[in-house]
Amino acid sequence: MTAGSAAMYQAMTSLGLAAESGYKGPIALGGDPKGASVLVLGAGLAGMTAALELRQAGYKVQVLEFNDRPGGRNWTLRGGDRFTELGGATQACEFDEGLYINPGPWRIPYHHHGVLDYCRRLGVALEPFQQLNHNAFLHNTKGFGGKPQRIRDIKTDFQGHVSELLAKATQQGKLDDAVTKEDREILLQALKSWGALDGDYAYKAGETSSEFRGFSKDAGGGLGAAPVPSEPIGLSDILTSRLWRGLQSFALYEFQTTMFQPVGGMDMIGKAFAAQVGDLIRYHAKVTRIQQSESGVTVTYEDTKSPGSPLQATADWCICTIPLTVLSQIQIDVGPKMQAAIEAVPYASSVKVGLQFRRRFWEEDEAIYGGISYTDLPIRQISYPSTGYNRGGKGVLLGAYTWNGPNSYEFAAMAPAERIKRAVEFGGQIHPQYAAEFETGVAVAWHRVPFILGCSGDWTDEARAQHYDNLCQIDGRIVLAGEHASYIPAWQEGAILSSLNAIERLHHRVVGA
Amino acid sequence: MTAGSAAMYQAMTSLGLAAESGYKGPIALGGDPKGASVLVLGAGLAGMTAALELRQAGYKVQVLEFNDRPGGRNWTLRGGDRFTELGGATQACEFDEGLYINPGPWRIPYHHHGVLDYCRRLGVALEPFQQLNHNAFLHNTKGFGGKPQRIRDIKTDFQGHVSELLAKATQQGKLDDAVTKEDREILLQALKSWGALDGDYAYKAGETSSEFRGFSKDAGGGLGAAPVPSEPIGLSDILTSRLWRGLQSFALYEFQTTMFQPVGGMDMIGKAFAAQVGDLIRYHAKVTRIQQSESGVTVTYEDTKSPGSPLQATADWCICTIPLTVLSQIQIDVGPKMQAAIEAVPYASSVKVGLQFRRRFWEEDEAIYGGISYTDLPIRQISYPSTGYNRGGKGVLLGAYTWNGPNSYEFAAMAPAERIKRAVEFGGQIHPQYAAEFETGVAVAWHRVPFILGCSGDWTDEARAQHYDNLCQIDGRIVLAGEHASYIPAWQEGAILSSLNAIERLHHRVVGA
Repeated sequence: MTAGSAAMYQAMTSLGLAAESGYKGPIALGGDPKGASVLVLGAGLAGMTAALELRQAGYKVQVLEFNDRPGGRNWTLRGGDRFTELGGATQACEFDEGLYINPGPWRIPYHHHGVLDYCRRLGVALEPFQQLNHNAFLHNTKGFGGKPQRIRDIKTDFQGHVSELLAKATQQGKLDDAVTKEDREILLQALKSWGALDGDYAYKAGETSSEFRGFSKDAGGGLGAAPVPSEPIGLSDILTSRLWRGLQSFALYEFQTTMFQPVGGMDMIGKAFAAQVGDLIRYHAKVTRIQQSESGVTVTYEDTKSPGSPLQATADWCICTIPLTVLSQIQIDVGPKMQAAIEAVPYASSVKVGLQFRRRFWEEDEAIYGGISYTDLPIRQISYPSTGYNRGGKGVLLGAYTWNGPNSYEFAAMAPAERIKRAVEFGGQIHPQYAAEFETGVAVAWHRVPFILGCSGDWTDEARAQHYDNLCQIDGRIVLAGEHASYIPAWQEGAILSSLNAIERLHHRVVGA
Repeated sequence: MTAGSAAMYQAMTSLGLAAESGYKGPIALGGDPKGASVLVLGAGLAGMTAALELRQAGYKVQVLEFNDRPGGRNWTLRGGDRFTELGGATQACEFDEGLYINPGPWRIPYHHHGVLDYCRRLGVALEPFQQLNHNAFLHNTKGFGGKPQRIRDIKTDFQGHVSELLAKATQQGKLDDAVTKEDREILLQALKSWGALDGDYAYKAGETSSEFRGFSKDAGGGLGAAPVPSEPIGLSDILTSRLWRGLQSFALYEFQTTMFQPVGGMDMIGKAFAAQVGDLIRYHAKVTRIQQSESGVTVTYEDTKSPGSPLQATADWCICTIPLTVLSQIQIDVGPKMQAAIEAVPYASSVKVGLQFRRRFWEEDEAIYGGISYTDLPIRQISYPSTGYNRGGKGVLLGAYTWNGPNSYEFAAMAPAERIKRAVEFGGQIHPQYAAEFETGVAVAWHRVPFILGCSGDWTDEARAQHYDNLCQIDGRIVLAGEHASYIPAWQEGAILSSLNAIERLHHRVVGA
């Protein structure tokens, strides 16, 4: 750090701003590894982070990758792409030029400092990912007769009714034991402001509530342009519809504003890494055996383009980022504790379906620009693209995104075409335009993706208590990395921080030896 | 409309989606105006909308504009721009290439369908404007010892404490009169979810609250990576700090997600209009007299580049978009009702200060990407740029944005350099990096801007009841338009909808004659 930035860091920590991050800026691997070599297994973000930083620190690095591309789950599907899932079904993506879907990670929280710093260093341009769109829908087949409701209505009305209830209870002396007299006066003001209550602390139709939930007729210009207030939904209808369940995901630390996505697709990150370390990567390399001795590591693999002829790579050290679903099926020379940890982690199930439509009807007809509609239908979510707003033309949205549970298994069990067909049918209950405007789709069921056989590490608290540290410890000359070796499972940040932590410990061992 | 889009519109209205908008799609001015001519006064958005649509409908159109550029308040300041305010002070903007500030309108709500449709038709690219950034600050010099607080902390903690209070009251039977037994059960579930309460309906430090407010130590990767929960702020501290006042602006219909800004500056809209109608505009034209007779309109103006020689323009009709602050000082042949209306509308006061810094420290040090920090300091707000995220290098933020009240008058009374100096001093109380990183600034006090002498029409309910319709009625051959002739004052949408409404009525008169 320069003197200036050190001073700034002091200013930051005095405000309590920087202490919370798990990422402390670009890693500094001081000391000379004296020609030590490292074999990295997997060219996802964890593997490429290791390759980038270890070569920089003076190591000889080689990377073995199963796929024919870098990135792993950092993956974007565009027109012309083909992929074959377990079971042999091959899909050809037929999206128009410029349209895409990210089957894996698709958003970056503002506090994922590791991902953001690599984006900055590697020149990956970012744009906001819209998580919360007040004008998107909450939908429950059993609420409001199955008619989708605007998030702004449910959010404003729930908050308004709750504020009114608490304000009334405060006025009736029912909070006298819980809140001091002085605070009760301010609480009433706060609830009035926060709940859009009127002068009598009532939440009801009028200008005040409409200023938050919107109007039944918006203000206009010229003559006859006065706005008309809208009618709030009753608390009981909101409660029994269960639509309140959809209100808080947007407020989670993981999903709060400002989130990001790379301009042009998430794989811009993988490609930016590969621009740095692509020369180190051997693609089509399927690892079949990982051996170690006191003097080094030997990895056996085969070239998937010419199978049947085992090849070997050797190095002093090995960083293995192979997902545990796959690694647990590979013979690896590690102690019983790490072996038990490798076998202890179940993987989350997830299905994503990308759908291309003739026109961006969600924008043109419904004024939904980005964001997510939530539903109790098996598709669970519809996410509208956070790019290309308002330009007209075709668009690709995320027509289904399941995460664990029966919907994931149900969709994964279908043939790809059937997944797409069902996503279009279900989505049509929310957007009747689907039937007329749908063109083509792709569907990725992560449990059928050959290089991972699942979506991401899905630790239970018990498994983590018993196995996590054993998974992360250096075992002889082998150390594991990846989102599964982090407390941020399923996120790219977990992969990167896991990798940085692993190589830092490995490097200390090497230069300290 | 094509048959398909008509069907879609039916689908929309059956969902209650389209009825609310004041904009009904591109205006259709059927019928032949038979060579009628129109003189448009002012080349802001209202004037250029009229010019664009009336020429399209067959009118002969000319536009007189005071400034040397199109757009009016649709205005962006970049390095190399100069402007002189009332009193003679001239500022030269010295921002680096690619950096800018929008002194006037700077954001577009998703329901401003008129602005959005012209952006689409004229090819103006949009990007999200971040209004709510959970990681920006709320700041009150009298709360928390003047230490800024993260919005996510105040928001989560206020919501949590309020939910706990109401849940406890519900459990204690205090809501039995207000809520049915069945609904009380669901209300408890909803409050638990919505307020991040624990199993005992308590809001306190732990994983549940930290999942919303953030952690004191974020989750990481590898060894020693477990997250550490954060400690909520007490309700009393939030109440007495008054920071809750800053929580709801983001939820207003006007400011809800998804908002937009044009890529590259707000004046991209004005420039896009001018690309269509620029050939009709005479710049440097200062209107001094507006006359009408039964046969037409005569407008006297002078060329500000060669003053003292009155010029005249004539037409059958006149669309006057001159701000009422200026128009009330020009002799105009209209009836007493319109004249009274022209003189009845006070104008809002506003000051904006743009500040350039050597580096984007708000991103680099504090992980604030876009959004707004609110303060009780005279600067009122700091808004971080909603573009160029995470790329490093210099940045321009909005270092003060006052709206009416003493802070506006105070800033407007200062010389420009003093406004900038004060904005830097005040902002430094929130961002200590200001002092070391500040480079250059510009300050626009709207009451000193010669072409408007204020910010926007600031109707009272009383004035609107008495004068609004009189302002908007066609008076002989003259009709007024602009945000002041709308129910959406201060917004570009008001200018456009006002103009569309005015020309529609004028056109009916012309073709019906």
